[in-house]
Amino acid sequence: MNSPIDVAILGATGAVGQRFIQLLEGHPWFRVRELVASDRSAGQRYENAARWVLPGNAPENVAGLTVLPLDSALQSPLVFSALPGDIAQVVEWRLAETGHTICSNASAYRMHEHVPILLPEVNADHVRLIDTQRRIYGWSGGLATNSNCTAAPVTMALAPLRRFGIEAAQVVSLQAISGAGYPGVSALDITDNVIPYIGGEESKLELEPRKMLGAVGADAIDLLNCVMSATCTRVPVLDGHLVSVSVRFEEPVAEADLRAAWADFRGPDPVPDLPSAPARPLIVRDEPDRPQPRRDRDAGGGMATVVGRLRPCPVMGGWKFVAMAHNTVRGAAGCSILNAELIAANGYL
Amino acid sequence: MNSPIDVAILGATGAVGQRFIQLLEGHPWFRVRELVASDRSAGQRYENAARWVLPGNAPENVAGLTVLPLDSALQSPLVFSALPGDIAQVVEWRLAETGHTICSNASAYRMHEHVPILLPEVNADHVRLIDTQRRIYGWSGGLATNSNCTAAPVTMALAPLRRFGIEAAQVVSLQAISGAGYPGVSALDITDNVIPYIGGEESKLELEPRKMLGAVGADAIDLLNCVMSATCTRVPVLDGHLVSVSVRFEEPVAEADLRAAWADFRGPDPVPDLPSAPARPLIVRDEPDRPQPRRDRDAGGGMATVVGRLRPCPVMGGWKFVAMAHNTVRGAAGCSILNAELIAANGYL
Amino acid sequence: MNSPIDVAILGATGAVGQRFIQLLEGHPWFRVRELVASDRSAGQRYENAARWVLPGNAPENVAGLTVLPLDSALQSPLVFSALPGDIAQVVEWRLAETGHTICSNASAYRMHEHVPILLPEVNADHVRLIDTQRRIYGWSGGLATNSNCTAAPVTMALAPLRRFGIEAAQVVSLQAISGAGYPGVSALDITDNVIPYIGGEESKLELEPRKMLGAVGADAIDLLNCVMSATCTRVPVLDGHLVSVSVRFEEPVAEADLRAAWADFRGPDPVPDLPSAPARPLIVRDEPDRPQPRRDRDAGGGMATVVGRLRPCPVMGGWKFVAMAHNTVRGAAGCSILNAELIAANGYL
Amino acid sequence: MNSPIDVAILGATGAVGQRFIQLLEGHPWFRVRELVASDRSAGQRYENAARWVLPGNAPENVAGLTVLPLDSALQSPLVFSALPGDIAQVVEWRLAETGHTICSNASAYRMHEHVPILLPEVNADHVRLIDTQRRIYGWSGGLATNSNCTAAPVTMALAPLRRFGIEAAQVVSLQAISGAGYPGVSALDITDNVIPYIGGEESKLELEPRKMLGAVGADAIDLLNCVMSATCTRVPVLDGHLVSVSVRFEEPVAEADLRAAWADFRGPDPVPDLPSAPARPLIVRDEPDRPQPRRDRDAGGGMATVVGRLRPCPVMGGWKFVAMAHNTVRGAAGCSILNAELIAANGYL
Repeated sequence: MNSPIDVAILGATGAVGQRFIQLLEGHPWFRVRELVASDRSAGQRYENAARWVLPGNAPENVAGLTVLPLDSALQSPLVFSALPGDIAQVVEWRLAETGHTICSNASAYRMHEHVPILLPEVNADHVRLIDTQRRIYGWSGGLATNSNCTAAPVTMALAPLRRFGIEAAQVVSLQAISGAGYPGVSALDITDNVIPYIGGEESKLELEPRKMLGAVGADAIDLLNCVMSATCTRVPVLDGHLVSVSVRFEEPVAEADLRAAWADFRGPDPVPDLPSAPARPLIVRDEPDRPQPRRDRDAGGGMATVVGRLRPCPVMGGWKFVAMAHNTVRGAAGCSILNAELIAANGYL
Repeated sequence: MNSPIDVAILGATGAVGQRFIQLLEGHPWFRVRELVASDRSAGQRYENAARWVLPGNAPENVAGLTVLPLDSALQSPLVFSALPGDIAQVVEWRLAETGHTICSNASAYRMHEHVPILLPEVNADHVRLIDTQRRIYGWSGGLATNSNCTAAPVTMALAPLRRFGIEAAQVVSLQAISGAGYPGVSALDITDNVIPYIGGEESKLELEPRKMLGAVGADAIDLLNCVMSATCTRVPVLDGHLVSVSVRFEEPVAEADLRAAWADFRGPDPVPDLPSAPARPLIVRDEPDRPQPRRDRDAGGGMATVVGRLRPCPVMGGWKFVAMAHNTVRGAAGCSILNAELIAANGYL
Repeated sequence: MNSPIDVAILGATGAVGQRFIQLLEGHPWFRVRELVASDRSAGQRYENAARWVLPGNAPENVAGLTVLPLDSALQSPLVFSALPGDIAQVVEWRLAETGHTICSNASAYRMHEHVPILLPEVNADHVRLIDTQRRIYGWSGGLATNSNCTAAPVTMALAPLRRFGIEAAQVVSLQAISGAGYPGVSALDITDNVIPYIGGEESKLELEPRKMLGAVGADAIDLLNCVMSATCTRVPVLDGHLVSVSVRFEEPVAEADLRAAWADFRGPDPVPDLPSAPARPLIVRDEPDRPQPRRDRDAGGGMATVVGRLRPCPVMGGWKFVAMAHNTVRGAAGCSILNAELIAANGYL
Repeated sequence: MNSPIDVAILGATGAVGQRFIQLLEGHPWFRVRELVASDRSAGQRYENAARWVLPGNAPENVAGLTVLPLDSALQSPLVFSALPGDIAQVVEWRLAETGHTICSNASAYRMHEHVPILLPEVNADHVRLIDTQRRIYGWSGGLATNSNCTAAPVTMALAPLRRFGIEAAQVVSLQAISGAGYPGVSALDITDNVIPYIGGEESKLELEPRKMLGAVGADAIDLLNCVMSATCTRVPVLDGHLVSVSVRFEEPVAEADLRAAWADFRGPDPVPDLPSAPARPLIVRDEPDRPQPRRDRDAGGGMATVVGRLRPCPVMGGWKFVAMAHNTVRGAAGCSILNAELIAANGYL
């Protein structure tokens, strides 16, 4: 890359928007040039508009940018979106129509038939739906999403196991508070407590992994043919979503084969060489008590999924395990950035 | 009851021992007279030997008792045991042989063929194994256990559903730190973290509910014929074990029938009238985000199990729900006391 | 009391409003009849309007009441206010003018020259400012406040020491999250963190104790002539404000005299016999590591102040100690109720 | 430096020992070659002997080292000690006698007249006590300590203010749980709680800063002539000790002068160029609610002290502020490493 690609961030003042800014600091390909947020923030310097919730401060080159309103005509060819779903539905489509390429963390278009949910190590070939978008809608840009933050570790852990024929998966999640944004969860609700419910989350977790794990055809994706069941809970953890997964396969599978599938898993070219790709997308821990959110969420710069506790599940007749990934890095902003790198490496930008 | 029954507490300085003392304060039938602990504590006044970890102080009438060593000849006919499993194995049997009736929270004898795991609302008739013990071993006392702390809410929630033919149940637990005793879990391990493993817990959770839900025969209990699978995690919560449960039944069951079974559930006579029995053993919450450990653990004085979030499980082809109970009350000391009340009411003391 | 006094609660849906409702359940003198909240809640059943943040549920007799708007003409002679300061300023004065007696937790009128900040064990005689109010403003009711939640334990611990001539006091507080109401503090801010700032709190803490500890004259209160300095922090604790206090006295004081002053402290008649008065307003703990918020906040039903760690302060040339009280009971709703009991016992209702 | 200096770590399996290992990974001057721990661990591979409590894993080059017993004859010229005080007293002196240079985090020799407590930006010249040690005791090595973890931010914040004549300082600390080592604080003690006592801590905090801020003479250090008073509390925070400090100066000082003193503060040559020295030892935050442990503890790689909330203290007649530093980096292992760098740069190694 000769000169950096200018980038706009939608929803720049929120928790995920801040994570975009943090992760893009010093990025070799991308440079943050435009910050977009709601009318309440527009017109202010970013450092005044945003209450920075990550450690330290907003990076200096970003702190002084003036926040733009949502209806701005943007200059940046690449746009990252951390907008709420309802606003994303309007803004993202409009930006795609006006030539931008949007990598979105919002849920609005995840299940749209012509929009991929990218998890590059798993489904880099889904990126070709951008061609479909350009042909059908006449866009010069495109629109790609990343998954729900909990779907990311579930999908990453299941991806190497597709070869064994996944018939069904049961998931119980223990999700971190940062997944709810800022201010998000009240400390009076979550201190010394578990909230065994996250609105709208379970249906996403039962559907999005099947799309990510599905096969891309001419102009659409065939969902993976398996049944999923999810229970989502919130626990007093800052970052890192942990999931307990039980899987049933079409045929009996040996433990050694599962372990080998995980250990050998790598993304297809050019994914392993993208700037934000972790050295290993899946890390298998052998200790009986890992993965743990606090101790494993930063593995691979927050981009790795850590799995462990593989053992038979007598009820499913298959296997159960625990997986964990950083919800605002691999499960949100970091994944969107990796998606943009994949799109750029494929020449779409 | 004319005069109170004297009570000894084994393991009196630990976290569960303290809960026994707290719950027995002002008990209408029982009076704490003897406190037993390891050699390190023996000979000291209780208030000096025990680091009181519950709110407030040790009750005044107990604070001044001298702690007895484990090999003491006890005077109290009724003995509550909060001993570690290996010590319990030696001490509890010896006490049963010398005429005491032991209600134990220890795991040592739970799966012994002649020892019941009592959960009075569920299996009050299992108490008759004390007759078996007396006949076979020539005891004048007896030995009864309560279950693992996580098995209690699982079993209580499943008990009313036995009529529908439970074939299989998957359980994922989110367990409180008090379940590990004191000092137990290091704050450096659990703060901002989840530990997805509790040694020895999952096998107990896959077996004990089947014994509690089983039918008592002449001299033994037939385990309930169902398959269970458990994943146990520790979360940063003080008290209250929460479980996510998915159940498969022999035949399709309607939601209304499940709800009615829960709502109508009561223990058999004389259980509802025992001093420690909650007004309702099962409380069904209709809010989407209940039960929660902090807000529901004290329901029924900590003796109720609270259930909620009933919905279909597409993977099990049955139903899934969330249940919660106070792990050191219903799941430990409180249950042992209720068991003793049941034993007393049946004339064994 | 023959028939109960009807009570209205302003700001009934908030965290302190809920605490009023909880503490008034089964009150021997008062009966909750009217619940008042913002327009957003008005017209709804209370159980639907309020997200109950305390353990369990709203009491049944209150759950079905219809929430009234802030401009309602109230029937209840006694009104408890948990309103925000700016709204309280308008509403409380209007209600006092229309014949109601208001016991307010709001800060609006605390420093008004004709309004007392009551802490009954400390300044029961300040209640006579209600006579002043009636004379000057022609009211038939009256208006009394309770202090800032952190000022309560500071004042209670200093009150018995007034006899030694308090010249100066330095206070550093470690305050619980419930002090900020609901939703209040974001879990993303306070988890694994301390916030060393609470807006507007330090100036209250430097002034209100001096008013509470002052002498009531004809129609006004002379502030206690001492200098106070406060630093306020928020810590990850649910309930219970802890303060570290260093005091300088006019003359040297012996430790035994300080201890005796604390141990002997009782409120003047009729305070000890009021329904909400704790058996002992001040509890001295001798253990080196007490008071602790979680273990001591419920002492005296949440109405006691617990002190400990008395030792010389080489910098102040006096003494330093730690004090703690439950911030939403003694520091808010519970104190207001005790204030109302004092007012009723003095025949003002 | 041509070839790296071999390093031994005493107490290598504990929490501070692990921090030494983590911070020395990739160090430009030092290379970990020997790990020493108690008999319980000696003889095992480090990865088996130590329960790694920091994020991720022990570095690979260290994981395979065999743990040595405490009485080993060590090869490494430089020794870092994270031993408990009583063991340190025996082992450290013996190692100094046998030619090693020890940089110790233990308290055993901090107040010894011939041993410096080094905080390089503040008192780099105290290093010359090593000459004294060599002359008096005939050592070829030497012994230097770093301060108590809470004394570090207090001393760093006060150091630039020495010029104004510090007469007295009052300190209240809010200390993180990692300060107590591993397993250290029980989660049952600190969850939803504050422990207002840390054994032995307050007397260290009243003395060590005076030594660090004192002037080094021929063979001894004159303590700074000021009075200090400390109250130490433990709060539910993982890392980062926060202190509230009130200071009285000999003469009135203007706020601008204090701020300038802090802003301009740098260590003397060669301290700013040492590998572990932060770009700025003191960072002044202007936001009203900073410093915060979680958001500021990693400033300067955990080696900076962050100060804020400067405002007059009416009781002290001076100023009060809040300071914060990472307790296991700047307050322990990181400071010891910087001390070793200073010693090396002065040619003692």
